[in-house]
Amino acid sequence: MSGPHYVSVIGASRATPELAAKAEELGELLAERGFVVICGGRSGVMEAVARGVKKKGGVSIGILPEADRLRAAPDLTYTVCSAMGYARNLSVVASGDVVIALGGAWGTLSEIALARNVDKPVILLDTWELTPPEGGQLDGVRRAKTPAEAVELALAQPS
Amino acid sequence: MSGPHYVSVIGASRATPELAAKAEELGELLAERGFVVICGGRSGVMEAVARGVKKKGGVSIGILPEADRLRAAPDLTYTVCSAMGYARNLSVVASGDVVIALGGAWGTLSEIALARNVDKPVILLDTWELTPPEGGQLDGVRRAKTPAEAVELALAQPS
Amino acid sequence: MSGPHYVSVIGASRATPELAAKAEELGELLAERGFVVICGGRSGVMEAVARGVKKKGGVSIGILPEADRLRAAPDLTYTVCSAMGYARNLSVVASGDVVIALGGAWGTLSEIALARNVDKPVILLDTWELTPPEGGQLDGVRRAKTPAEAVELALAQPS
Amino acid sequence: MSGPHYVSVIGASRATPELAAKAEELGELLAERGFVVICGGRSGVMEAVARGVKKKGGVSIGILPEADRLRAAPDLTYTVCSAMGYARNLSVVASGDVVIALGGAWGTLSEIALARNVDKPVILLDTWELTPPEGGQLDGVRRAKTPAEAVELALAQPS
Repeated sequence: MSGPHYVSVIGASRATPELAAKAEELGELLAERGFVVICGGRSGVMEAVARGVKKKGGVSIGILPEADRLRAAPDLTYTVCSAMGYARNLSVVASGDVVIALGGAWGTLSEIALARNVDKPVILLDTWELTPPEGGQLDGVRRAKTPAEAVELALAQPS
Repeated sequence: MSGPHYVSVIGASRATPELAAKAEELGELLAERGFVVICGGRSGVMEAVARGVKKKGGVSIGILPEADRLRAAPDLTYTVCSAMGYARNLSVVASGDVVIALGGAWGTLSEIALARNVDKPVILLDTWELTPPEGGQLDGVRRAKTPAEAVELALAQPS
Repeated sequence: MSGPHYVSVIGASRATPELAAKAEELGELLAERGFVVICGGRSGVMEAVARGVKKKGGVSIGILPEADRLRAAPDLTYTVCSAMGYARNLSVVASGDVVIALGGAWGTLSEIALARNVDKPVILLDTWELTPPEGGQLDGVRRAKTPAEAVELALAQPS
Repeated sequence: MSGPHYVSVIGASRATPELAAKAEELGELLAERGFVVICGGRSGVMEAVARGVKKKGGVSIGILPEADRLRAAPDLTYTVCSAMGYARNLSVVASGDVVIALGGAWGTLSEIALARNVDKPVILLDTWELTPPEGGQLDGVRRAKTPAEAVELALAQPS
């Protein structure tokens, strides 16, 4: 397909300074590689990844839960207002050709799983440890140890 | 609150005979206790729990992904057509006063997490093992070893 | 298809006494004919139709915008919590084999249109007057003058 | 609020050459005024408005119904994949500070109404004629006769 490639970055609305630094680094690296970065548009990891993207002159799009932009992260390039609350988690991951999960709480876990429901490859970085029930498979998921490794895995995805 | 109490039962659309038997038992026990059972309305665990509810004369409501009832589980009492695809996972868990996860694949994992996003208590039975990232908490979640224990935990929830 | 037949009744959350009386009559007539009545679960027309259904011992299901039942109409038999705000309007109409619009404001208009998007026949009763832009067609829509006529038209729908 | 201003342009997936020409002109005018243009991302009016935006070097974002970009209009700058079918109509209008309806079928009508549900001002151009039921009001809606007039009305909106 022509046009830009998209990476969804998912992570919690609260982030420690260490996690925020990783998210910002991830945003910088993705922008340098030319990815459009999709996120949930709020605070924490989402805000930090948008800041990294902006530093490198890239493009980020935040998909917000509400029908307005009042609580959008300040460094996003563009915002979309889903007006669907937590159902927007599905749109966040469906909009990426690949999804990178960094840290995260329940919302991030829902996004990892919803990404797999719509067949998006997921890269896990310092996030949930998951063991499926007996007989189940953890398909379509890769693990990275650093933001740089996550970006390399994203680049290796067919699209 | 007056009116019936609702339990959402979540689980995969494919089930081994053992898992289906547990789901059917769970449906029977929930119906005997007077719960209205909400599920995703399809095959596997969803179909089996509806069968158990029907056996005991209870009420089940399936919330389907599509805008029609062509693929609804046969033993459901009622069906609702969300027409929103996987976003219906959010409605399935939001409709329960408490959520019981039995077995399951990615869809079930998304529902466990979405349930916590909307503050519904979750009871895990033979399902995903989850370890949150460093600093995160697995709040609002209880574990059961049998369908009977899951129902006891559901009864113990404030509502 | 086996199982019950469903009618979605749509209308505004505010209703004059005259409109509420018509909605209640509509609910009674639909219950007498054995339809399960779906509605948005709130006040006004929704509350009145549920009251009519209850009077005749029928079954109504309200699909609520929120993740809780705090604002549900009191006479509903069952409730589902979509947790998707106004996006639940799509689920309300998708859940009916046929849709009856009675009175209504913007929400009702959105539901009339969404019903046609998912190919549900719509019966209009004392509601919006609609003229499509040049070249467009008002397909799939019938008009009724009374609740009794609306129910006759609903019964005449193939399902 | 800082950041760009957004206009959602809604219209049918089928357009006569005359309507497509108006949509393209509308896209050009909006891009010249610096608006980010949101649309449903498909064919017809959506495709034509994106073409107009591109001609003038502006930015358009299409919000698609599916979880992939296979059917996206070719001239869109960016795309978001809602994965929610017709429920994406809500996100399309919620993402605009103001909404312009041009021509249109049932989908456009649902978007006009959903826009008003989330309090977005709507500008009507060669689209549905609407008369609310007795006692209802057509609030928050303006009419334009040309694309240029629609853009002037959009500029006059507080934001």
